[in-house]
This record gives sequence, C-alpha cells and structure tokens, in this order.
Amino acid sequence: MPVVPRGGGTGLAGGCVPVDGGVVVATGRLTRVRSFEPSTWFMHADAGVTTETVQRLARENGLFFGPDPGAAEQSQLGGNIATNAGGPHAFKYGVTGRWVTGVDVVLPPGEPASFGGPLSKDVAGYDLTHLLVGSEGTLGIVTAAWLRLLPAPEAAYPVIAFYDSHAAGCAAIALVVGSGLDVAVLEYLDRGTLALSGAACPADVPAGAAFAVIAEADGDADGALRRLREAKDTLGHGALTVRSYEARSEIASFWRWRDGVSTAVAAARGGKVSEDVAVPRDRLLDIVEASVDIGRRHGLESCSWGHAGDGNVHASFLVDPRVPEELNRAETAAGELFAAAIAFGGTISGEHGTGWVKRGFLSRQWPGPAFRAHEAVKRALDPTNLMNPGKKR
Amino acid sequence: MPVVPRGGGTGLAGGCVPVDGGVVVATGRLTRVRSFEPSTWFMHADAGVTTETVQRLARENGLFFGPDPGAAEQSQLGGNIATNAGGPHAFKYGVTGRWVTGVDVVLPPGEPASFGGPLSKDVAGYDLTHLLVGSEGTLGIVTAAWLRLLPAPEAAYPVIAFYDSHAAGCAAIALVVGSGLDVAVLEYLDRGTLALSGAACPADVPAGAAFAVIAEADGDADGALRRLREAKDTLGHGALTVRSYEARSEIASFWRWRDGVSTAVAAARGGKVSEDVAVPRDRLLDIVEASVDIGRRHGLESCSWGHAGDGNVHASFLVDPRVPEELNRAETAAGELFAAAIAFGGTISGEHGTGWVKRGFLSRQWPGPAFRAHEAVKRALDPTNLMNPGKKR
Repeated sequence: MPVVPRGGGTGLAGGCVPVDGGVVVATGRLTRVRSFEPSTWFMHADAGVTTETVQRLARENGLFFGPDPGAAEQSQLGGNIATNAGGPHAFKYGVTGRWVTGVDVVLPPGEPASFGGPLSKDVAGYDLTHLLVGSEGTLGIVTAAWLRLLPAPEAAYPVIAFYDSHAAGCAAIALVVGSGLDVAVLEYLDRGTLALSGAACPADVPAGAAFAVIAEADGDADGALRRLREAKDTLGHGALTVRSYEARSEIASFWRWRDGVSTAVAAARGGKVSEDVAVPRDRLLDIVEASVDIGRRHGLESCSWGHAGDGNVHASFLVDPRVPEELNRAETAAGELFAAAIAFGGTISGEHGTGWVKRGFLSRQWPGPAFRAHEAVKRALDPTNLMNPGKKR
Repeated sequence: MPVVPRGGGTGLAGGCVPVDGGVVVATGRLTRVRSFEPSTWFMHADAGVTTETVQRLARENGLFFGPDPGAAEQSQLGGNIATNAGGPHAFKYGVTGRWVTGVDVVLPPGEPASFGGPLSKDVAGYDLTHLLVGSEGTLGIVTAAWLRLLPAPEAAYPVIAFYDSHAAGCAAIALVVGSGLDVAVLEYLDRGTLALSGAACPADVPAGAAFAVIAEADGDADGALRRLREAKDTLGHGALTVRSYEARSEIASFWRWRDGVSTAVAAARGGKVSEDVAVPRDRLLDIVEASVDIGRRHGLESCSWGHAGDGNVHASFLVDPRVPEELNRAETAAGELFAAAIAFGGTISGEHGTGWVKRGFLSRQWPGPAFRAHEAVKRALDPTNLMNPGKKR
C-alpha cells in the first residue's frame, strides 16, 4: 500500500513525485482559466487556479464567487473542492460545493472523466460531481471545475459587537438568526481569541470584552445600509459596544485584521493544534465552552473562533511546537473536541476535511450502516485503494 | 429480477405491495413533521409530508422553503428529493438538494441509516446525503429529511413580458442574466404554449405575441420594488408589452394561471408526452426551436415552457392518448429531443429524473468512464439490484 506522508506538503508547484513508496500529486501548475463567459455566469477553471484569481476575475466582471476560505492568494480551487471549503460568507452563500456544477477528474487507476458542466440543473445520473466535492482526493483527482457565479452585491458592510461573556455573545447570535436577519456573514471570536488578537482590531475592544460577533450586511446600496442598521440594532442587545464600517478603506482594514486572527493566535506560543468542528447552531455555546474546558483539563491555553452562523468552530490548543509532549497533549485534547462535537450532534469537520489527523473518527460519527455505505463507495470508485489511502475514514 | 411497472402509480397512500413479481413501496403515510424549530431554521420531516405543508409551515413562521415544483398539494418531500425537484424559484434559490442537509434512508436490503443532520456544513465523510438526492429510489428509500429553511423575502412581485419571436424573447432573457439582475424567477412560454394557455392569462396577450418571459423581483419591500422596476426596464427591450403585479390577489391569480399551463396544454388534444431537458443557458433558443422542429418532423403539435434562467425546458408533444400510433411517434420525438439536449451540452433531465422512460439515454450523455463510475456506485450500494431495477441508467 502506498504511504503518503502526513500533511502531504512537498513544496511542489505541480507535478507528481514518489514519496515513501507512494506518490504525491500536485495540481499547482494547472493554472488555466479554460473559459469564462461573464454573461452566462459560468467559469471553467483548472484545479490550480487560486481562489483569489477566481474572486478577482468574477469581481472585475460584476460577478461574485462566494467561498472565501483563509489565504485566498495561496489556496487553490482544487483544494477548495477537495475539502468543500467555506469561509465567512458561506453563511449566506454556501460552501464551495454550492458553486460547483461540474468537475473534470482523473479516476483511479488513471482514467479521465467529467461530471456535470455549465448547467444549473442536471438530474440525469447520480450527483457524482458533489460526491467528488469534499472527497479529499480519495476517489479521484479533480483537475478542473465548472463554477456558477452570481451577480455581485453592490455593497457589503461589516459590523462587530462585543459582549462580556460567551453566553451573552451566543445569545446575540441566536437573536440574529431567530429574527431572520438576512446577513451574509455571522462570525464569532471567543475570550481567548480576543485576548490574543484584539490589540490589532480596528475597533477598540472594550474593557471586559469576552466575546465578539461579526456580521456583514450586503445587497444593493440601500438594502445593505438598511440591513446594517437592523444588524446593529439586533447585535446591540446585551452588547458592550457595537461598531460598523462603511468606508472602503476601513472595511478592507477590518477584514485584514479578521484574516490575521489565526496568525496572531499561532504567534502566542509559536504553534497551535487547530481543529474544525461544526455543531447544530443552537449548540454553539456548548462547543465553545467545551473547547476551553478541554484545553484547561490538559493544561493548554485554548481559544476558538469561526463561523457562528454555520455552527462551525475553529478551536486552537496553543503549543510550543518544539515540545513533543505538548503536541501530544494537544492531540489528545483535539480528540476530545471531536468526541464533544459528535456528542452535540455535530461533525468532526465543517470545512477542512477529515484527512489523516482525524482518522478513525468518522466511524465514531457515522453509525455502522452509514459508515459501511461510505466504505462501499470508496471501494466502488477506487477498488485497489490507490487514492490517498487511509485518509477520510 | 423484480419488475416494477412503468409509472409506478398504485394509488396507495402508503405501504408496500407486491406488483408483477416486484414490490411497490409508497411513503405517503409517513406524514409527520418530526421536529421544527423556526429559530434555528431547521425542519426534520417525513418523506410523505407534502411540499405545500413544508411551504406553509415555513411561511407561518417567517421562513421560506424555496423548491416549488408543480402540484405542491400532492407532491411529497420524498419525491422532491428522489428527483431533486426544482420549480420556478430554483433560479435564485436552487433545487431541492440545496435545502436538504440530511436524509434518513433505508438502504438495501433493508438497513436504516442516516446521513447528515441539522448542520449547515459537514465534510467528515463523503456527501452521501446528496448522492441520495436525485437517485430516484435506486440506491435506497428516503424516509425523512432535514431541511434548512431561509428567512422569507418580505415581498415578491411577478412581471410578464411578451415578444414577437422566440429569438426576441431569448435575447431578453440573456439581457436579464447578462445585466446581473437579481431576480428570483426567470421563466418562459413559447409560441405554442401561449396559443394554448394565453386566453386565461391575467395579462392581455398582445396580437403577434410568440414568446413570454416571466420574472419575479423579491426581497425586502423597497428592494423588491426597485428590482421590479429594473426587471421591467430590462425586459422592455424588444418587448411588445410588459405587465407586472403588485396586489396580493393579482399575484395569486397570476401564479394560478402559470401553474395551470401544463393542464391547459394537455387539454388541447387530450394528452401530451412531456419531457424535461436542460441545456447551458446560452443554448436556450436552440433547444426551444429544436423542440418545435422535432414535433413538426413527426407530424405532432409541440410546444415548450419552463425555467429559462436554468436552461430547463419542459417540451410537450401533443397527442390523442387513445391513438397508440401517435404515442409511438411522440416517444420517438422525445428521444430526438434528448439527443438534441445532449448535443447542445445539456442533460436529459433537469428536475424530473431519468426513470424508466429515458432508460438507455444516460450512457449516451455520460461517456464511458463517467457512466462506469455511475454503475459502480449503484452496485456498491445495491449489489443485488433490488432498488428500482433498470431505472436511472
């Protein structure tokens, strides 16, 4: 059986090299936008095209590509598809799969195939396009995809509100959702995250702040402003302070700060073990508190932030990466976090995938019959277990 | 091998009866809404709950269920899921699958399983939820589903515009899409459909009208009105007349007429063979013209209407159902329509499924490797070919 190293990073821009008896395939040199006809909203792009390139081409043509996972300059369409990546705007606009109407793939042992195309609707065969999306390279290698873009919102204004407790912040999130506010983004940062990243926040973090909620109101110019007012009113309930941004430069600074949160948290001790669980939205407070408790039990500083509207929590256990014993403790803590997410009716991964790190957990999340169906699908498309063996299970 | 009769209708409200050596399973008695917590936007409903019930419960709680296939009072969630049904609002809001975050199923030979749940994001395992959606009962029987609803738009105003040719109407559709207008619905009726259903249309159909385009502008009250003005302006290019509706009773009458189009067309000769193909949106005019030409070649009156924004065409060949020879000619015509859709880069089914009627066409649409993957998935989940044998292939 080929063995692919954990992490799998090779620094390859593209190509295919043998590693430890296995082979690492990189699609980074597949960088062509094969076709883009803005008037039809469809783009056909290679797997190595960066997320930022798709976003930019869309924007320059009055269109919009919703998925905005971190590091858009580096992250590539193929990776976004492999993990069904999300990001802040997934709350309103859905994860990568929602934007994908077809994929070109190489199926094992090496057979090119295409599913779907520039079609909004297609129920002729099984939805193998979306079986490939999120399959983490275990069923085939995606080489290109058809994307269905949308008209760009005219305006999008962020707002951030601070609360004196996790509970007060989660109550505000529930109020936004329960009020049916049409916001594009609904994010949170917990107490620990604010402590590590708050100094650089464009908004003054008030004394006693233990939780922040970020929303974004978008739409046509008038509608976005009206929604911004509604969001500020709603988030104001129980808040210490509320701050919004309407000037283009301020909006850019604000999102730059938000994008940098992960780096700021990692810098605290030099490293972090970060995981990506999701729970039903009404269990958000439970998983936020659980991630703190688990860290404490293992003597690790921990914090979380993420996509509150989707119940998607990025929890970090801070470590000194030079200390193997700390890493071991953090991995044990991560395992407990997965178990907590499952116990709350959630999932071990919202948008990063299961990969190698979470191996063995899927069968704990999916009871026997479901897991057996999962394995049967893997065997059906990859009978000799060539593709990313041992991953995603 | 069990044989399930074509059509499969048994008049059963629910249950399981042997038919012709096979078994027909009806889920119509599974009518319970298992849970509905409006503040979280999630509903867990049995497969036999009608589309209208889901829509009504959502509406009564300020929420919205987008899929609106015809005959909402009779159509059931399980059927909507089996065919990944759409309807007019799929243009903005997507087909049924977009609203489904989990399914409870019985996998062959009779094993209950669940995939997904009340989660907005979940990439732990393969997306077997959406593999089941649109699988037409060939992989398992869906008994219930988790639905993620959305806040209801405050207002929705329809507009209809008439054109003197198919080409002029399709140009108007391209203009709406190319302008990036955020409309919820983008429908069309061709010359033949207007001739058979226009008399009952709440708008006066102008002399010489050969094509109609219907759009709907929705959103908050102000935004919907602004979009309605934009839609009327844009559809006005090349139109004979444009008419919109803002009063609740007028809106209801208008949609009642649109819902009745299929019945009006069927009444003309007592029957029709109707098919459901989809093409890339910029091939709409080609498939509309092709459906007329094919009918003419076979001596059949034909017409089409449908979901222009999704390139989804419902083409009808009118027949006297008492004349088998006419039915045969219409089936030959339907086969040519499928071939035309495939030739235009489209699909033999946008939202009805492949079923038994279109058997043999999937392998013409999907080249060898893709079709073999499709068959491998079928064998993986239903190795003894128990479920709807012979369908969807």
